[in-house]
Amino acid sequence: MRTTEGTGARQSTLRSSNLALVLRTVCAADGPLSRADVAVRTGTTRATAARLVDELVAGGLLDEGERLAPPRRGRPATPLLPGARIGALGLQVDAGLLAARLLDLRGRVVAERVEEDDLVGSDPARTLARLGALATDLLAGPAGELRLAGAGLALPGLVDVERHLLLRAPNLGWSDVDAVGLLAAHLPDGLRPVPGNEADLAARTVAETAPGRPGPMRDFLYLSGQIGIGGAAVVGGQVMTGSAGWAGEVGHVCVDPDGPPCRCGSTGCLEQYAGRHALLAAAGLPLDTAPAEVVARASAGDADVRRALDAAARALGVALAGVVNVLDLPAVVLGGHLAALAGPLRPPLEELLGRRVLSARWRRPVVAAVTGPPAAGATGAALRALGDVLADPVRRLG
Amino acid sequence: MRTTEGTGARQSTLRSSNLALVLRTVCAADGPLSRADVAVRTGTTRATAARLVDELVAGGLLDEGERLAPPRRGRPATPLLPGARIGALGLQVDAGLLAARLLDLRGRVVAERVEEDDLVGSDPARTLARLGALATDLLAGPAGELRLAGAGLALPGLVDVERHLLLRAPNLGWSDVDAVGLLAAHLPDGLRPVPGNEADLAARTVAETAPGRPGPMRDFLYLSGQIGIGGAAVVGGQVMTGSAGWAGEVGHVCVDPDGPPCRCGSTGCLEQYAGRHALLAAAGLPLDTAPAEVVARASAGDADVRRALDAAARALGVALAGVVNVLDLPAVVLGGHLAALAGPLRPPLEELLGRRVLSARWRRPVVAAVTGPPAAGATGAALRALGDVLADPVRRLG
Repeated sequence: MRTTEGTGARQSTLRSSNLALVLRTVCAADGPLSRADVAVRTGTTRATAARLVDELVAGGLLDEGERLAPPRRGRPATPLLPGARIGALGLQVDAGLLAARLLDLRGRVVAERVEEDDLVGSDPARTLARLGALATDLLAGPAGELRLAGAGLALPGLVDVERHLLLRAPNLGWSDVDAVGLLAAHLPDGLRPVPGNEADLAARTVAETAPGRPGPMRDFLYLSGQIGIGGAAVVGGQVMTGSAGWAGEVGHVCVDPDGPPCRCGSTGCLEQYAGRHALLAAAGLPLDTAPAEVVARASAGDADVRRALDAAARALGVALAGVVNVLDLPAVVLGGHLAALAGPLRPPLEELLGRRVLSARWRRPVVAAVTGPPAAGATGAALRALGDVLADPVRRLG
Repeated sequence: MRTTEGTGARQSTLRSSNLALVLRTVCAADGPLSRADVAVRTGTTRATAARLVDELVAGGLLDEGERLAPPRRGRPATPLLPGARIGALGLQVDAGLLAARLLDLRGRVVAERVEEDDLVGSDPARTLARLGALATDLLAGPAGELRLAGAGLALPGLVDVERHLLLRAPNLGWSDVDAVGLLAAHLPDGLRPVPGNEADLAARTVAETAPGRPGPMRDFLYLSGQIGIGGAAVVGGQVMTGSAGWAGEVGHVCVDPDGPPCRCGSTGCLEQYAGRHALLAAAGLPLDTAPAEVVARASAGDADVRRALDAAARALGVALAGVVNVLDLPAVVLGGHLAALAGPLRPPLEELLGRRVLSARWRRPVVAAVTGPPAAGATGAALRALGDVLADPVRRLG
């Protein structure tokens, strides 16, 4: 297996930007395009489009499908598709799981391994060695035919994207961990996953249904409900990772400066009301209570549970209204335990956003919930590595 | 005078993106480039670069300067500069002024008119007719030789960027005003300024020192201290205007849900503590007190003024820490009355950001203040219109 690193650096050269435009055009399309379609959509001549397509086909970034009967008389057109033999590896460590998932450039899951486990307070070296073994096992399988364009690692905390260090992952109890170095020692030669924040990467799976193919929502605030609360703002389909990669910490937006102290050193942070542990503690329930049980108790009229859910919804309303006022996002997407609690949370939350968002009179923010397969962060990590290929195909082609 | 409208729509055609890349390269450079420099910086051949440059020179988007002696032996190179005969008109209505400013593609102010006046509660039709007359007068002057690539209008409120309506400008007391229509009736034929939020446009003057030339800060939260507080988040040099153009309403981030009612219908909004009127009322001062007077009283030990400033700094700390946690911005830039109050506000504000920003341990947010010529919104409106030319020169060249 060939491995190359994808770092997302985009070269502003004409060749690079022209190849990227053609590749993105094919990836973004709802169905296969012909060379003539590419010429029309990129506003160039057939000859130029064909030359660029040929280069991408030769490099494996595009595949030619079976020729179709032409819609009208003429030569049958060759359908173009994103390259099925280009893939990326997405990895994830979370408080409750380890995951390795291999995606191809068409966005299909080629292979995956997910292991659930309680990793709170685990030893970083041992846990990352386990993840490395999982990934190595995955890459040795039938997916070995895939040419790996890159790898990503989703981590539940603040990641230094320059130095590739995990600064702090409160849910795991890890700080200042060289997660990439510890992991890479257990991966095939030369493979160094690019680390990123779990919520940033999970948000990418909502913004894109496949590499470069836009999802139904392009502007939203994603909330990852975990022990605490992570998040990511997505603007025009782009995850706002911030200048150092530390953006999206919605869980630490202040709801009440006189509120309870937070692990972060501040007071009254959102996650002290709506994080999984804080909410369960407020409801007088054990910290391992499933969200479905919380919903059932609220429906049955349990006053403590209802009060805790109301406090969580109120805190979410205050904090998210502020974010929406600053970013003008038409939707909030709940993930993790917050998605499972969307039933009771949504009505009071939508009411509060309607009241506290300045522009709500003209467009009231929508609250949605996403429930998908586990380890969305691993999928997002692979999508990001494949997105780096789309942004700079020349790095791939040489 | 030729007038064309710039709407910022960017066509994804190869010709457009290649011309835009060359034009942006010249505009972003610290000094004049030669065709050979352009070839190197855009990673293309000299022949291709020269062809693209020639097309831009023919269209007036680039100018050729006097030939310089070559650094080494060889033919003297012709320096390239942004076109001095392409300009844009920036207009602004604010609670305290009307402004019209003409900028060329090099970012130079070619001509301007600024009229200070109290426009709170003014009649929209009459005020916009005045602004139209001001602009018409400006365009009839020596600036008439400029080819106008577009015009922009800075408005202090929520602007519907799709329908080009001013939805609400609380400081002026205006709502649902067809500001562009009322203004265009008093402008030369066919000139319809594109409206935008004042703070969004003012922030652009910090992000760019000239059209397409990056300023010293590329990631920051800009605060426009007025009667209320406007703002804009700038990420990678781009102003985040939001999906509908309503982003940046930092003044309505909640500081305390149990705080005083705000004109917006919510409670405890930032501008109820740090807006000009709220701060002066809390200090027991007349609402027309100059910021310098406030600073002088605080220095002299006036307890009421100090308390009001502390409350404003605390509110700014709570609200801005939330925004920084979500957007990971390394700097906050104070504008308007907040810039004039930066002396007493900065120390407590920086201390609070250090305590409440999750990543402050690794990079503490900086608080800066900008004081420039009045009507930064008008400058920003012209910069945006010129930015539309840079994004899509083909629209200009035809």
